[in-house]
Amino acid sequence: MANRKWPIITLLTDFGTEDHYVASVKGTILKINPGCTLIDITHHVRPHDIEEGAFILANAYSSFPRGTIHLTVVDPGVGSPRNPILLVTENYFFVGPDNGLFTFCLLREKVKEAVALTNKKFFISQVSTTFHGRNIFAPIAGPLPLGTKPKALGREIKAWVKLPFRKPKIGKGELTGEIFHVDIFGNLVSNIGEEEVFHYTKNRPFVIRIGNPSLQGSKKSYWEVEKGEPLALIGSGGYLEISVREGNAQKVLKATKGDKICLTTETRRSLRKTI
Amino acid sequence: MANRKWPIITLLTDFGTEDHYVASVKGTILKINPGCTLIDITHHVRPHDIEEGAFILANAYSSFPRGTIHLTVVDPGVGSPRNPILLVTENYFFVGPDNGLFTFCLLREKVKEAVALTNKKFFISQVSTTFHGRNIFAPIAGPLPLGTKPKALGREIKAWVKLPFRKPKIGKGELTGEIFHVDIFGNLVSNIGEEEVFHYTKNRPFVIRIGNPSLQGSKKSYWEVEKGEPLALIGSGGYLEISVREGNAQKVLKATKGDKICLTTETRRSLRKTI
Amino acid sequence: MANRKWPIITLLTDFGTEDHYVASVKGTILKINPGCTLIDITHHVRPHDIEEGAFILANAYSSFPRGTIHLTVVDPGVGSPRNPILLVTENYFFVGPDNGLFTFCLLREKVKEAVALTNKKFFISQVSTTFHGRNIFAPIAGPLPLGTKPKALGREIKAWVKLPFRKPKIGKGELTGEIFHVDIFGNLVSNIGEEEVFHYTKNRPFVIRIGNPSLQGSKKSYWEVEKGEPLALIGSGGYLEISVREGNAQKVLKATKGDKICLTTETRRSLRKTI
Repeated sequence: MANRKWPIITLLTDFGTEDHYVASVKGTILKINPGCTLIDITHHVRPHDIEEGAFILANAYSSFPRGTIHLTVVDPGVGSPRNPILLVTENYFFVGPDNGLFTFCLLREKVKEAVALTNKKFFISQVSTTFHGRNIFAPIAGPLPLGTKPKALGREIKAWVKLPFRKPKIGKGELTGEIFHVDIFGNLVSNIGEEEVFHYTKNRPFVIRIGNPSLQGSKKSYWEVEKGEPLALIGSGGYLEISVREGNAQKVLKATKGDKICLTTETRRSLRKTI
Repeated sequence: MANRKWPIITLLTDFGTEDHYVASVKGTILKINPGCTLIDITHHVRPHDIEEGAFILANAYSSFPRGTIHLTVVDPGVGSPRNPILLVTENYFFVGPDNGLFTFCLLREKVKEAVALTNKKFFISQVSTTFHGRNIFAPIAGPLPLGTKPKALGREIKAWVKLPFRKPKIGKGELTGEIFHVDIFGNLVSNIGEEEVFHYTKNRPFVIRIGNPSLQGSKKSYWEVEKGEPLALIGSGGYLEISVREGNAQKVLKATKGDKICLTTETRRSLRKTI
Repeated sequence: MANRKWPIITLLTDFGTEDHYVASVKGTILKINPGCTLIDITHHVRPHDIEEGAFILANAYSSFPRGTIHLTVVDPGVGSPRNPILLVTENYFFVGPDNGLFTFCLLREKVKEAVALTNKKFFISQVSTTFHGRNIFAPIAGPLPLGTKPKALGREIKAWVKLPFRKPKIGKGELTGEIFHVDIFGNLVSNIGEEEVFHYTKNRPFVIRIGNPSLQGSKKSYWEVEKGEPLALIGSGGYLEISVREGNAQKVLKATKGDKICLTTETRRSLRKTI
């Protein structure tokens, strides 16, 4: 992939927006490459929650133009021996700590080049042991679009950390997954992908259970149920998601991250109760 | 209005900044038109609160240069038959769902062209029924500055949804309005415009009541009262607003959105108590 | 310092991100100078907390390229006789109210030109007495990079407001400072700089007390203690800072802004208890 001189750099961190941290990273990038377009994905990942950061990145990254640099810093291991890394795929650059942040992106992106960022020449001279976002990651992201070859930034690596992704399971006639993310509207996003729903149900009618309530099948739009009613649909990220029309599914269903969600095509009497 | 190739696109949504939604919209725009300047108005409109979104947009939109595209997504009806629309005025482009979001802007802007965005050629191929921000609105905003004619985006319309605006009323010798917005400082912004104050009071002294407390007339600056004291003044948006100098009027006066606010030029004894 | 036509303008305010205020400032700048790159430092300074704003600015400003304009509005005195000012240093432009916001930056930057922004020609015609961010500061920041001479914006001044900075003190064999800032991770940032630690301890072992707990010396990295353990280190801003590895020092140590923090090189028995 050819580098672009005035590229887009996205930022995803757990730095919040109340402190100077995000600005320090941005300023550092702009010092090296003042023409960058900097786009925040979010800075409100729960502190140190790598899995949440990985999930949000996976939902956002592919909306950006080819050649975008995704700078991602959720880094409880800052200062530890974990490596800062750069992964180059067919379409994007991923820069961040080697702790699994790119796991879910790499389900769809193929790594063409992988480098541990060990070349200190590129770091800010006095490397803080607590703020690699500013002192290592930003100075790496900045020169990339200026034509710096990935290999110049450190040594090639063949492996990187992967998060365990709890895939949904089929057993006892049920497809069982879990709530993986709760969004700002209270939508409950599961780890059950659209294809998995299809492979399991093969277009047969099915029932979804989350706690006590059961939902009949999956809808196309909020507007197939009444205001305040729960429904299941395939969300914008491609995963089965439980919502309440013009309401908050998390509150209405008293469900939360980690809760089990089950699909069944059986129509046993006990499952017939719907809400 | 001539289109500008590298325009400014503002975003106002209720998406929050914790999820990937805003970034997905921005990435989609940048994919089409990588030179856009993207400016957030806010993403913290209360979920589904169209009126609040309309109010904030009306306060911000005219600060931007001519030709700015205002992309506005507060959309409880996503997936319903409501149309996505584009309104072109003398000065700006407004893109969003047809649910009244532009009502207060259009008190001052004259629509020259109005289009229901029905031309699916411009949408992202697989239109999500839950995320029109990314799949319809962003792909419409992106090409606009590249010279795409509004009419190419869909069919012309003659009418669009308008929110009811509860105008202040004169009755029993009083001008009665309501608190329409509470800002981050706790300032209580009313729906009573500067001109309405003038037309009613005709420069006579007046008293403002909000709950029990009464305030004498309107001030020019916080500095006409002591620290911690309440006062009324014409706020930066042109509406009568109740503040507390270096304090929080919402807390001090225990007032909130929807509360009545009355002006009277009479000096009845019962109104003379001031704080 | 030569002006740059397409410069970077940072914004630091207490306006929050829920209202239209920040967008109104940005739009106003872009109306004058549409090529500016606008970077948020933060808009979440506690309302009217000048000292906190000054602290965050001091941590962020020097990461930005030479010629950056730092527009800073934490302004409880808006509408009072306090002046809006512009300070030009060797490296940066600082624009904001004259209330001490630049105090900590000026410990390291030398002012070359200082102007009270009194030339109303540059203001937005009808100056709101409550929103100088939009009506005075933004219209000043906008034309600066277009070559406007600082002197044209008002009258030269020789003095400006300085915040008192409570320096750490040496007494009774102890170096005593205080917690000056608590960041989003719960890290407790003190007012004791790296050099002060060195001058006092002269590389002798030392003990840090904050409330009851004592910490042995200063570490280089979180990884020198176990997960959940507190430690002291020199933070990314150059100040002594108390953290908890992968945890929240504010919660674990029940400490907060303003709390005393003491260093001693004595090894009195009572201080030997470490946690």
